[in-house]
Amino acid sequence: MESDNTFELRTIGRVESSLVSLDQAPRQADESAPPAVLVFEPTVAPGLAGLAVGDGIIVITWLHLANRTALQVHPRGDLTRSSTGVFNTRSAARPNPIGLHRVVVTSIADYRIGVSALEALHGTPIIDVKAILSEDIALR
Amino acid sequence: MESDNTFELRTIGRVESSLVSLDQAPRQADESAPPAVLVFEPTVAPGLAGLAVGDGIIVITWLHLANRTALQVHPRGDLTRSSTGVFNTRSAARPNPIGLHRVVVTSIADYRIGVSALEALHGTPIIDVKAILSEDIALR
Repeated sequence: MESDNTFELRTIGRVESSLVSLDQAPRQADESAPPAVLVFEPTVAPGLAGLAVGDGIIVITWLHLANRTALQVHPRGDLTRSSTGVFNTRSAARPNPIGLHRVVVTSIADYRIGVSALEALHGTPIIDVKAILSEDIALR
Repeated sequence: MESDNTFELRTIGRVESSLVSLDQAPRQADESAPPAVLVFEPTVAPGLAGLAVGDGIIVITWLHLANRTALQVHPRGDLTRSSTGVFNTRSAARPNPIGLHRVVVTSIADYRIGVSALEALHGTPIIDVKAILSEDIALR
C-alpha cells in the first residue's frame, strides 16, 4: 500500500553472482568484485531494448539484508574511525538501502545481461537500470 | 506491506525548489536547473552528521509523477528519435522512478541542506543521500 510518504518498489530482476555471503562481498566494486549476471523479469524485457555489449550502465539494487534503522556508522566498519551519518557514507545501512553500481555490459542473451565487477550478493533484487549520459560526470 | 518482490520505500525528506511544474523542469541538471533545498525529516537528522558545505553528494529521489508502466520511450521525448528501452535512457518513465542527482552542498542549517543545481520539482520525495567516493568514477 502506498501513501504520501511510502512508495512500493517492485523487483525487476535479481543478481546472479558467485558472492553468496556478506563475508565475501567486497565493499566496493574496485575491490575485486566478480562479474555477475542480471536476470530480469520477462515482463520488463522491453525496457532493455537498445542496450549493447560494451555499454556502461548504472545498476540500482535493493540491499535487502541491510540494517534500515542505523543512522550512524563507522566508515567501512572500522571501529577505530569515528562514527558519522549514514548519508555521509556509502554504507548499506540506511533507511532505504539502495545500492548504486556502475558496470559494463559484457553479454546479452534475452533478459540475461552479463556485467563486469558487481559488489552485490547472489539474489540481490534489481530495482532499476540507467544509461550513463555522454556528458558523464563523476558520481560514484 | 513487503513481499519477496516488493519493498517499502520511506520518504526521508522533500525537495524545496522554484520548479513547480514539469514544463519548467530541465531534463538534466546541466540544463540550467535552479539551486534547491533538501528538507529532511527530523527523525533522520542524525544521518546527516559529517556532511559539510562544499561536499559533493548523490541525492536519490522518487520521481512521484512519472509513468511507471512505460517500458519504451523516445529519448528526451523527441518523437523524431526511435523509441528505446527505458533502461537504456535516463527518462523518469520506468517501473521504479528513481532519480539520481549529483549536487554540491552549499549550506547546512539543521536538517535543511542547500544544494547546487537540482532538476527535481518542488515537493519531490527524497529517498537517499550518498557520499561521493574519493576514488570517484564517472557514473552519471
